[in-house]
Amino acid sequence: RPVREVLFFPSRPCCIEQLLAEAAEPGAPTRPCPCPLPSGDTALSRLVRRLLSARRSLDLCLFSFSCPQLARAVQLLHRRGVRVRLVTDSQYMGLHGSQIGRLRHAGIQVRHDQHSGYMHHKFAIVDQRMLITGSLNWTTQAIQTNRENVLVVEDAEYVKAFQDEFERIWEEYNPANYSFFP
Amino acid sequence: RPVREVLFFPSRPCCIEQLLAEAAEPGAPTRPCPCPLPSGDTALSRLVRRLLSARRSLDLCLFSFSCPQLARAVQLLHRRGVRVRLVTDSQYMGLHGSQIGRLRHAGIQVRHDQHSGYMHHKFAIVDQRMLITGSLNWTTQAIQTNRENVLVVEDAEYVKAFQDEFERIWEEYNPANYSFFP
Repeated sequence: RPVREVLFFPSRPCCIEQLLAEAAEPGAPTRPCPCPLPSGDTALSRLVRRLLSARRSLDLCLFSFSCPQLARAVQLLHRRGVRVRLVTDSQYMGLHGSQIGRLRHAGIQVRHDQHSGYMHHKFAIVDQRMLITGSLNWTTQAIQTNRENVLVVEDAEYVKAFQDEFERIWEEYNPANYSFFP
Repeated sequence: RPVREVLFFPSRPCCIEQLLAEAAEPGAPTRPCPCPLPSGDTALSRLVRRLLSARRSLDLCLFSFSCPQLARAVQLLHRRGVRVRLVTDSQYMGLHGSQIGRLRHAGIQVRHDQHSGYMHHKFAIVDQRMLITGSLNWTTQAIQTNRENVLVVEDAEYVKAFQDEFERIWEEYNPANYSFFP
């Protein structure tokens, strides 16, 4: 049965160390994390689980990405051999706390717009099969304090529309196409 | 067959006068609008059409609402007897260009948060049947210049989740529940 899920935020703060450890070494014995945060079932932990289910590809189209927990999940997928591509907004990628530099440094392909309008999407596509989209920017502030929604949709029609949009933007933001004015 | 649609923005600017005129007086002869904008099929005109299909209720949960065209569509529905309820963000409702004051003045019920986190949803529910949700704030700038997405979903499971969230927020933001500190 295809996944159909709606996540609402704010999410209680939670520890995702165990989720990350399991994803890094499936089957290995996990040690409880010494941090004081609960590791229960929250909107954030559900979002992380969906992302960590990626086996082949993860396409990210994110206006703002400053949440270190989500950045660690993305880095882990990249290390595990998942093909990660990230499109973001040029005006927000440089803001304090942005994780874009860290992800680029880790070797992840990042592209951004060169224009005045915002690249305001907030979606992810897992294995060209599962669409994760909504109002949520990937910031700790949004996750913990805002009213937000995220839809998880495994429906070929919706996924294809977003995958096509991703490929259009990926090509449009190819640095080879940049124009520079004096 | 239930509606399943994805709208991507930016949308070309377009004239929606004819759509509004038809919705105000169905069947009446329409006069072409003298404005220079084209009235073709755009993401904005499709969004307006979906909204104008409301017959009984329109529940709006919008972080930012400053687009005069969309405000006119909402006012028209209100005048036509559709029960419109609007939830918005207290910090954004007062910004220059916001349509919230105008809608309140027209007699539409508006509620907003009283707290520091943003009410960051951007969704509408038509007749408790059709969900319209995505990254798009209802501002002309977003519509005409940003990369944005809007999903139109007529699926009882997703609609119910959002309708429940709307009712929770509507109750939580009831002014009778406000707390005032000295």
